[in-house]
Amino acid sequence: MKKLVAEFIGTLWLVLGGCGSAVLAAAFPELGIGFAGVALAFGLTVLTMAYAIGHISGCHLNPAVSVGLWIGGRFDKKEVLPYIIAQVLGGIAGATILYLIASGKPGFEIGGFAANGYGEHSPGRYGLTAALTSEVIMTFMFLLIILGATDQRAPKGLAGIAIGLGLTLIHLISIPVTNTSVNPARSTSQALFVGDWALDQLWLFWIAPVIGAMLAGIVYKYMGRTAN
Amino acid sequence: MKKLVAEFIGTLWLVLGGCGSAVLAAAFPELGIGFAGVALAFGLTVLTMAYAIGHISGCHLNPAVSVGLWIGGRFDKKEVLPYIIAQVLGGIAGATILYLIASGKPGFEIGGFAANGYGEHSPGRYGLTAALTSEVIMTFMFLLIILGATDQRAPKGLAGIAIGLGLTLIHLISIPVTNTSVNPARSTSQALFVGDWALDQLWLFWIAPVIGAMLAGIVYKYMGRTAN
Amino acid sequence: MKKLVAEFIGTLWLVLGGCGSAVLAAAFPELGIGFAGVALAFGLTVLTMAYAIGHISGCHLNPAVSVGLWIGGRFDKKEVLPYIIAQVLGGIAGATILYLIASGKPGFEIGGFAANGYGEHSPGRYGLTAALTSEVIMTFMFLLIILGATDQRAPKGLAGIAIGLGLTLIHLISIPVTNTSVNPARSTSQALFVGDWALDQLWLFWIAPVIGAMLAGIVYKYMGRTAN
Amino acid sequence: MKKLVAEFIGTLWLVLGGCGSAVLAAAFPELGIGFAGVALAFGLTVLTMAYAIGHISGCHLNPAVSVGLWIGGRFDKKEVLPYIIAQVLGGIAGATILYLIASGKPGFEIGGFAANGYGEHSPGRYGLTAALTSEVIMTFMFLLIILGATDQRAPKGLAGIAIGLGLTLIHLISIPVTNTSVNPARSTSQALFVGDWALDQLWLFWIAPVIGAMLAGIVYKYMGRTAN
Repeated sequence: MKKLVAEFIGTLWLVLGGCGSAVLAAAFPELGIGFAGVALAFGLTVLTMAYAIGHISGCHLNPAVSVGLWIGGRFDKKEVLPYIIAQVLGGIAGATILYLIASGKPGFEIGGFAANGYGEHSPGRYGLTAALTSEVIMTFMFLLIILGATDQRAPKGLAGIAIGLGLTLIHLISIPVTNTSVNPARSTSQALFVGDWALDQLWLFWIAPVIGAMLAGIVYKYMGRTAN
Repeated sequence: MKKLVAEFIGTLWLVLGGCGSAVLAAAFPELGIGFAGVALAFGLTVLTMAYAIGHISGCHLNPAVSVGLWIGGRFDKKEVLPYIIAQVLGGIAGATILYLIASGKPGFEIGGFAANGYGEHSPGRYGLTAALTSEVIMTFMFLLIILGATDQRAPKGLAGIAIGLGLTLIHLISIPVTNTSVNPARSTSQALFVGDWALDQLWLFWIAPVIGAMLAGIVYKYMGRTAN
Repeated sequence: MKKLVAEFIGTLWLVLGGCGSAVLAAAFPELGIGFAGVALAFGLTVLTMAYAIGHISGCHLNPAVSVGLWIGGRFDKKEVLPYIIAQVLGGIAGATILYLIASGKPGFEIGGFAANGYGEHSPGRYGLTAALTSEVIMTFMFLLIILGATDQRAPKGLAGIAIGLGLTLIHLISIPVTNTSVNPARSTSQALFVGDWALDQLWLFWIAPVIGAMLAGIVYKYMGRTAN
Repeated sequence: MKKLVAEFIGTLWLVLGGCGSAVLAAAFPELGIGFAGVALAFGLTVLTMAYAIGHISGCHLNPAVSVGLWIGGRFDKKEVLPYIIAQVLGGIAGATILYLIASGKPGFEIGGFAANGYGEHSPGRYGLTAALTSEVIMTFMFLLIILGATDQRAPKGLAGIAIGLGLTLIHLISIPVTNTSVNPARSTSQALFVGDWALDQLWLFWIAPVIGAMLAGIVYKYMGRTAN
C-alpha cells in the first residue's frame, strides 16, 4: 500500500511539474522557459522522485515503465496492474491541481493544456507515422536507459540522475513532434481535461509507449545477459 | 554557534544567488537568463551549500525546512527557533549585499526587487487561491524530496543534488504564479526592501510554506515508516 | 558481439538525440531550444548511455574515442575496427530514424540536416583553419576528460557525468564554428543524407578528431603516468 | 612538473571553454546561448577538469583558489607561486587558441573579447564599488564552496560537481556586473588581447578575488574547525 501511495504522489509530481511548467511558464512573455525549460522540468520530476521514493516503490511513475520492467524480468507481474492504476490516478490528481492553479489567472483558457497529439494537434504538425515512430523509439530508449542504469554492474546510486536526465533528453528531441508522452498516465491526465481530440488521439499514447517499452525489455534481456 | 553561522551564510547565499540572478540578470537585453536561469540559480545555491555546509548545520537555509524536518522527526525542537532566526538574518544580509550591487547601476530603481506576491503583484497576475495552493503544494513536495533523499535507504551523498535540483524544478513551475517563495526567510528579505504591498502580502509566504512543510513531515512519517 | 550491439544502439542514440534535437527543436518558433539545448542534448546522449551500456561495451560511441583510448593504452587494438564499424552503422541507423520523423512534417526540406561544415557551410562562416583548429583541440580535450575521468584514481562512478557534460561544453563553444563534430560517425551519418558539399567536407571531420584523440592519448600517458 | 602541466592545460580549458562560449556562441543570431549558456560553460570547464586532473594537481585553475587553499591550510605555501605562473600561462594559451578560431570568421573584430570590466566596460554599466563588492563576495563564496565540498566530512567524489556548478551559479548572478572574473588568470588572458582599458582595469580582478579568497580561508578555518 505504501508503494502505491508513493507511485500516486510521484506521478502527481511528474504531471504537476512537467505539464505545469509547460502550461504556466513555457510561453511567459520575454522570460519564458521554452521547450528546453519544460524538458528540464520533466526530467527533474523523475530525478527528484528517484531519490525521494526510489527506496519505497522503485519510482516507476509511468505504466510503460512498469510494463517494460516486467518484460525485462525486473518487476513482479502481479504488481503491474495496481501500479498502473495508482499512476493514472496520481496523474489525474496532478492535472487537477494544475488546473486549479492555472485557472487562477484572469482570462485563462484551457486550450490544449499540455495534451499530446499528432497531425494538426502536434506542436509542429507532424503526422501519425512520425508520431508513432517517435513515441515507440523514445520509450524504447527510455527503458533501455532504465534497465541499463539499474543493472547490478552499473555504478551504484547514480541511476536516478541518468534516468531523470534521460527523460529531459527525450523531451529536448521530441516535444515538437507529439508534445512528448512516453507515458500513458501523463497523456491520460491531460486528455481528460481537454476532452475532444485529445481523447480521440489518446490510444496512440498508450499503445506506442507500451510497445517501445516491451521491445526494450526483450532487447536488454539479450544485450545485458551476463548480470541478470 | 558554528551551525548558526553556517545557516546565516547559507541563507545569505540563497538570497544573493537566487534573488540576485533575478534582479541582475533575468531580463538583461538579448542575453538575459530568463526564468529558467533564475530557477537554475536558486537550485544551485542549495546544491552548492549542501556540499559546503551540509556536514556543519545540515543546510536548511529555510524556516519551512527546519519546521518540516522537526515534524518529520529529523530535527530537534530546541534548535528550530535559533535556526529560523539565523536564516532570516542571513536572508536580510544577502538582500543588503544585493541592494548594494544592484544600486551601482545608473538609473537603478528597486521596483519589486525579487519579492513574492499574488494578485496584481504576481508575475502572471495569479490570484490569492492559486498562490496559496501553489506555495502549499510546492513546499510540500520540496520537503518530501528532502525527507526522502536524506532517508537512510536512499543513495548516500546524492541528496544535495536531488534537493537542489528539486528547488530548480519548483521555480521552473511556479515563478509565474508567486515569483516562487517556499521559503519565508527569502520572502522576508525582499519584502523589507520593497515595503508597502510586499509587507502586506508577506503573511502568505510564511503560512503557506510552513503548512506545506508540516503536511510533508506527517505524510513521510507514514510513507517512509520502515527505516525511520 | 553484445559489445557491438551496444555500440550500435548507443551511437544511434547519439545521432538521433543530438542531431535530432538540432533538426527538430532548435529553431522552433518562440519556444525553440537553441544551441544551448542542442549542446545539452548531445551531452545527455553520452551521459545516459554511459550508465546504460558502459558496463557492456565501455560506451565509446565515437571512432575518435576508440582510437584515443587505444593510443592511451586503455583499449585493445584488435577491437578498434569492429567498434568503428558498429559506430558508423549505428550513426546511419540513427540518421535514418531521424529522417523518417523529420520528414513527417508538411513542407519538410532536408537543407543541411545537422551536417558539419566549414567555410560557407559553417553556421557562423568560419574558415578551414578555424574549423581544423577547433575540431582538433575540442577532440583533444574530450579525450583528456575521458582518459582522466576513467583513471583509477578518479572518483568511482562519476565519469559518465563528467564525460557527458564535457560533450555539452564542447558544443556550447563550437557549434557556431563547425556545427561541432568531434565524432566521425556522427558526421558521416549526416553527410550521407545531405550528399554534395557535406560529403566533400567530410574528410576534415575524420582527420581532425582522430588527430586530436591520438595527441590526447600521448599527452595523458605522460601526464597521468603514476596510475596507469 | 606534471602538476604544473595539468594546471596549464586545465586553465587553458577554462579560458577556451568559458570565454570561448562567450565570444563565439553567446550572441549568435536567434540560436545563441546567452549569459545562461556561458555560465554553464564556465562551470563545466571546472567540473570536467575536476574529474580529469583533480587526482593530478588538485585542479585549482585559478590563482585566487591556490591562495585561498593556502590560507585555509590545505595547500603548501611553496607551491603557490609555481601554480599561479602555470595558470596564467595556461590562460594566455587558451586565449591565443580562442583568438585563432574567432578570427577565422570574416569581419571579425576583437571588441571587448571576453574581458572583465567596470563602469562603462561593465556589461550593465555597474560602477567600481558594485564591481569590487561583487568580485570579493563571489570569490569568497566560491572558496567557501571549495573548502566545504573538499572537507573530509563531505560526501566523497562529488566536490567536482558542487564546485563546477558553483562557478555556473556565480556567472548566472554576476555576468552583468563585471562579466564575472573571480579568477585573475582568466582576466589577465583576455586583457592582454584587448589592451587599453582592459589592462587599466585589470588590477581590480587580481585584488578583489584574492581578498575574497583569503577571507574565505580564514572563515572556513573557524566554521569547519572540527575536521581540519
